[in-house]
Amino acid sequence: MADTQSRTAPETDSATPGGITRRRLIGTAGATGVALGAVGAGAGYAVASSNSPEQSTALASLGADKAMFHGKHQPGITTPMQARGHLVAFDLAAGAGRKEAAALLRRWSATAERLMAGEAPTSEDTDVARDAGPSSLTVTFGFGHSFFSRTGLTKQRPAALDPLPDFFSDHLDKARSNGDLWVQIGANDSLVAFHALRALQKDAGGAAKVRWQMNGFNRSPGATAQPMTARNLMGQIDGTNNPKPAESDFDKRIFVPASGSPAWMANGSYVVVRRIRMLLDDWEKQSKAAQEDVIGRKKSTGAPLTGGDETTEPDLEKTDANGDLVVPINAHARISRPDQNGGAAMLRRPFSFHDGFDADGTPDAGLLFVCWQADPLRGFVPVQRKLDRGDALSQFIRHEASGLFAVPGGAQKGGYVGQELLEG
Amino acid sequence: MADTQSRTAPETDSATPGGITRRRLIGTAGATGVALGAVGAGAGYAVASSNSPEQSTALASLGADKAMFHGKHQPGITTPMQARGHLVAFDLAAGAGRKEAAALLRRWSATAERLMAGEAPTSEDTDVARDAGPSSLTVTFGFGHSFFSRTGLTKQRPAALDPLPDFFSDHLDKARSNGDLWVQIGANDSLVAFHALRALQKDAGGAAKVRWQMNGFNRSPGATAQPMTARNLMGQIDGTNNPKPAESDFDKRIFVPASGSPAWMANGSYVVVRRIRMLLDDWEKQSKAAQEDVIGRKKSTGAPLTGGDETTEPDLEKTDANGDLVVPINAHARISRPDQNGGAAMLRRPFSFHDGFDADGTPDAGLLFVCWQADPLRGFVPVQRKLDRGDALSQFIRHEASGLFAVPGGAQKGGYVGQELLEG
Repeated sequence: MADTQSRTAPETDSATPGGITRRRLIGTAGATGVALGAVGAGAGYAVASSNSPEQSTALASLGADKAMFHGKHQPGITTPMQARGHLVAFDLAAGAGRKEAAALLRRWSATAERLMAGEAPTSEDTDVARDAGPSSLTVTFGFGHSFFSRTGLTKQRPAALDPLPDFFSDHLDKARSNGDLWVQIGANDSLVAFHALRALQKDAGGAAKVRWQMNGFNRSPGATAQPMTARNLMGQIDGTNNPKPAESDFDKRIFVPASGSPAWMANGSYVVVRRIRMLLDDWEKQSKAAQEDVIGRKKSTGAPLTGGDETTEPDLEKTDANGDLVVPINAHARISRPDQNGGAAMLRRPFSFHDGFDADGTPDAGLLFVCWQADPLRGFVPVQRKLDRGDALSQFIRHEASGLFAVPGGAQKGGYVGQELLEG
Repeated sequence: MADTQSRTAPETDSATPGGITRRRLIGTAGATGVALGAVGAGAGYAVASSNSPEQSTALASLGADKAMFHGKHQPGITTPMQARGHLVAFDLAAGAGRKEAAALLRRWSATAERLMAGEAPTSEDTDVARDAGPSSLTVTFGFGHSFFSRTGLTKQRPAALDPLPDFFSDHLDKARSNGDLWVQIGANDSLVAFHALRALQKDAGGAAKVRWQMNGFNRSPGATAQPMTARNLMGQIDGTNNPKPAESDFDKRIFVPASGSPAWMANGSYVVVRRIRMLLDDWEKQSKAAQEDVIGRKKSTGAPLTGGDETTEPDLEKTDANGDLVVPINAHARISRPDQNGGAAMLRRPFSFHDGFDADGTPDAGLLFVCWQADPLRGFVPVQRKLDRGDALSQFIRHEASGLFAVPGGAQKGGYVGQELLEG
């Protein structure tokens, strides 16, 4: 997975010295967060320090950083990876249809907007996130294949939502796969994320029930001395080759164009979600050299085995003294490269997960793989098909759950996510 | 639980303006962490910024903050609460006795010392925490009642480890309770914590197997504009009345004296661990006023219902216009007060937990209650007995697992935790 994960960390430290003078010393904890925010801003989201009228002291830093709910795209796609995440699928309740779904998305959008802005808790609030700032909270909503038949909207269902093909390495638990509706919650504070999860579950009321729910995590802002590409639980630097928002073809690869089809998906994206268990006991029994051959990169630096640093292009033709390819033919980094897959590209923005140990001491841990693309048939599917056939990494992972969801563009002020679909 | 949790946040912001000049801007993310560290230092632990020779740029901030492994007491007791935690119990393997246990504690201590110091990964390391600083990592080791018979050390077993009495409200899962050995891991970064967990599990090798393992979390440093008492998943400010390291009787209440018995527990402490499920669906159906009557405090501020602010003493005799007590007779804050329990006091230093949802959408969430005292019979037991009989909160919580462990004093350089027991 070293090349199938998100790099949303900034290329450079863009926090300005001026930034710090605006903050109390105790409030500087989020300088990293603010710096990270610059990437989101470049892709259409503003992440700014807030000074909520409800807060008697200036909230700054990690807590104060916030993403915007309204915009061209939904938040949580190009927003920098957050330290804590919840993925949830809901199924509409028996008897709930298009009307109830529209009302639910309206409630959900209002809640997401309020919580992401760090507004003061309402009188009915659980108070779990009281005192904390929004902490870069994002909430993202999507629609699954089954949603459209449940709501009489099959004519609006995008072909891109057709079920993913079966893969040889799949061991999918249907109860933890797919679903009518999908919600992604991310924040840099665990209580802020949990608070949002419960608020959205409460909003669902009698209209929808939780189908499955998963918790994940990433590095905390500030855990490394400077922003770096993430590592996964196999210890690999993971996300080096992710498309960057600054690249000219980024939008085309990740987002449905404004003139795209169906019209309600303008500026939207398709997300593939996979619970990928890592067989860590097996993996950790391998020597470091063997692990590096599986991936095709140095574990310590992420550099290709053919030399250079993390961002150096691998020399895929290079051979060693014996005439063997230095980057093995089945190395993950070779097989997952866009230029080996007809230019397929996706934005990988995962969370790690760890749900304790099985009875025999095996960790139930791995990657909540979340990847974004304008078209799954040109993003996830061709890459996964190729990985499925020959990836050396496949013997150390197991895909245990899968979801595919249509994530509409961002809501405009006064509107809600999915309004064009549900009122179209 | 509002008064049965940890307050390890500092009273004041002790970060100095001078501190920040030593840090790169991007490295100021941990000003809060450094401030928090001052509390640990006051209680015998130093938390300092590091500049590991293995790090090419100065690590500072959240990542660089570190607690000391060696000292009078073990770390993770008075260390400020961390954003991520793992609790693990191990049982010795069949055939493993005192000798194997001594070797294991020696391995574990060496690993804990190395990881807490932020030393460079060894060549066998998984690399999961590479690039990150120690992020205030702490590792704490304890011995359960069953350890002593397994190792032929029953004569060394403290009476304080006698099994806790049964409580009416217990619904304990024995498979997730007690155990021969207990390890607590805390860090402000989830990957750093997971890395330590796996390293310690690997150290266990054939000598001990995981019995149970639980994950928890607390607020991220910097999520609030200034350090504040924690909130739990019921939304209560939780830990206001915790003993403070600066108080003259703190050590006496929390730690076994240097001259205490048995001698190997000098400067140690006893920890009670409870997995307390919160019945959040029931709780959140209550009005805010009803919730406040259950606790006896205002939810928003933590102030007693009799007025003032969070730290104001409640007026327990005060009545309203109808002659009813303002702080109800069964309010949690009244029943759990030390002066209502013969001066019983414990240092509560918990993690919240959330392990997803049950099939019906009920959250499997609550508190990993971790409390420290010099003697459980004068700390946890009398308070819990009183709560068990009349606490209004008890109908909203369920104790699902329980552990009691003897946590020896800290290791000296060259030694290991439990050495006086295992080589005594």
